[in-house]
Amino acid sequence: MVQANTTQDIRLDGHADELEIRDKKDVQALLDRYDAFLFDCDGVIWHLDDREKMTPDAAETINFLKDTGKKVNFVTNNGSKSRGEYLEKFRKHGFNVELEEIHTSGSATAGYVRDVVLPDISDKSKRKVYVIGSDSFEKELQANGLEWTGGTDPEDKEELPPFDYSCIKADPAVGVVVFQFHTQITYKQLTKGFNYLASNEGCRLICTNDNETMLIENGGSAPGAGALLKVLLAALPEDKQPVIVSKPWQEYMDQIRRRTDFDRRRTVFVGDRVQTDVLFANRGGLDSLLVFSGRTQPDDLHHLTAEQAPNYTMSHIGVLQEGKET
Amino acid sequence: MVQANTTQDIRLDGHADELEIRDKKDVQALLDRYDAFLFDCDGVIWHLDDREKMTPDAAETINFLKDTGKKVNFVTNNGSKSRGEYLEKFRKHGFNVELEEIHTSGSATAGYVRDVVLPDISDKSKRKVYVIGSDSFEKELQANGLEWTGGTDPEDKEELPPFDYSCIKADPAVGVVVFQFHTQITYKQLTKGFNYLASNEGCRLICTNDNETMLIENGGSAPGAGALLKVLLAALPEDKQPVIVSKPWQEYMDQIRRRTDFDRRRTVFVGDRVQTDVLFANRGGLDSLLVFSGRTQPDDLHHLTAEQAPNYTMSHIGVLQEGKET
Repeated sequence: MVQANTTQDIRLDGHADELEIRDKKDVQALLDRYDAFLFDCDGVIWHLDDREKMTPDAAETINFLKDTGKKVNFVTNNGSKSRGEYLEKFRKHGFNVELEEIHTSGSATAGYVRDVVLPDISDKSKRKVYVIGSDSFEKELQANGLEWTGGTDPEDKEELPPFDYSCIKADPAVGVVVFQFHTQITYKQLTKGFNYLASNEGCRLICTNDNETMLIENGGSAPGAGALLKVLLAALPEDKQPVIVSKPWQEYMDQIRRRTDFDRRRTVFVGDRVQTDVLFANRGGLDSLLVFSGRTQPDDLHHLTAEQAPNYTMSHIGVLQEGKET
Repeated sequence: MVQANTTQDIRLDGHADELEIRDKKDVQALLDRYDAFLFDCDGVIWHLDDREKMTPDAAETINFLKDTGKKVNFVTNNGSKSRGEYLEKFRKHGFNVELEEIHTSGSATAGYVRDVVLPDISDKSKRKVYVIGSDSFEKELQANGLEWTGGTDPEDKEELPPFDYSCIKADPAVGVVVFQFHTQITYKQLTKGFNYLASNEGCRLICTNDNETMLIENGGSAPGAGALLKVLLAALPEDKQPVIVSKPWQEYMDQIRRRTDFDRRRTVFVGDRVQTDVLFANRGGLDSLLVFSGRTQPDDLHHLTAEQAPNYTMSHIGVLQEGKET
């Protein structure tokens, strides 16, 4: 194993042979160097095309790392399930995992609102939270002891009558609009959020995701959170940007560190995407390990910037079992 | 009346006294100079705060102009009613008006799709039109002999199931997405439109409006067509912009001229807004007359660019009755 200490040392030639972790010696060096492992889930723990199918030896590998005393955490941008639902899924598939080891962009957003956003609003009467989001997201808000309006409130799911906005009421107490993408979003929800952002001075917009597009079953694509966010951004002054609590943004890393103390210099982030996972690790001062069980293939590793270059590559996380004493 | 032949001659000092049409002599000069009058409706024909209340002597004035042989046309950006519905409203209030004298951004958009967009798509099998819009807009499409999918189709009004996009089918025959703002828009409609724009090469986006915000009853604001359009723009290459068929854009003027032949040099546009009406007239090579019965007040006329400067001002259209022989 050639260990790349700085991104300047890295030379990826399309197959990344130099950086590839493949045998017992490589794995042992990795285990010696890192105390904590953060794992992306989609394409790393389970397959992208069937999220109930685990990647080879995934559970055994995670359990082995924990047995050897490593800190293990899971960091996903997919907030379509709550942490509780992810916990059930992990346990069903034989993973030895605890709730506090799971982080979704939804749980991190809720935590960020509680820990950072609300305490920062000095006037307590203006800390009301309006939510555009799903029931899974509401579970995360609840777990963080937050109170909110909106969300799955049936009133907000009703269609807005044609050109009759009388049901949209001013509420100067709303100081935060929290936005989570969901496919049942209505114009009424967007209008309420927009109205608070446009009318309430200093009202903040906090989001779980900013991907503009999503791939769908027919091979086409659909508008993602980032596309819908633009509706709300039309209400914000240009110099005021929303805070996005998902990879690759720093607020997500900060939030994980608030909840799980780890030594940055002895932590490695394991992911399947350059643009989210590797960038997230590099920006947060962590080393990164790119696996080829998900979105990225070895041939994709051309023309990377220093920020996008992983420290190591590996076919799939099961390779880490090479570190087991036999 | 001081007549300003070019925008360079205009000096507006906040009250626009020089340009104001107020007495019989001013009106007579105006009637001598113009054969055709185009009128905006909201804030010009009827009041902004109660659209069933006409501005003073509005019907008498329009009927007087027609009696003296003037061409009269109505040009509104408000497509919440069809032309047929506007015709009923005009007649109910005593206006002598015909259907072909009424233009809405909805009717002009439908006409533009029929006259310009579809003939320009050489492959006939790729001329299918997908509509995001209201039933009033569907009446305009029908009046133009257009066939379409979407619109008020109940299937498109259903909520998209959580993260199940199987109902969104590829349809390479869709070559045009037509977008009209309505308050009952669903994520499913946006997703269908987005998918066609993203997947079908050369698929065009034609819209009736691009206002980003709308004022609402509570004094706040709501996202307008321009804000929702941004969801669809995320699917378009950056060099490809949608065509907007509303004031102040040239396509609307071109479409009115296709339907109603008038001599540009002998036509004046009467409106209540600088940013839409006056700009529209000036860009289209028409003279403009700004009335103070709607959005703009004399004190608003500071710091106008040459493009925004009206040729004349008037308190309300009823002043034109000064031209009547007594």
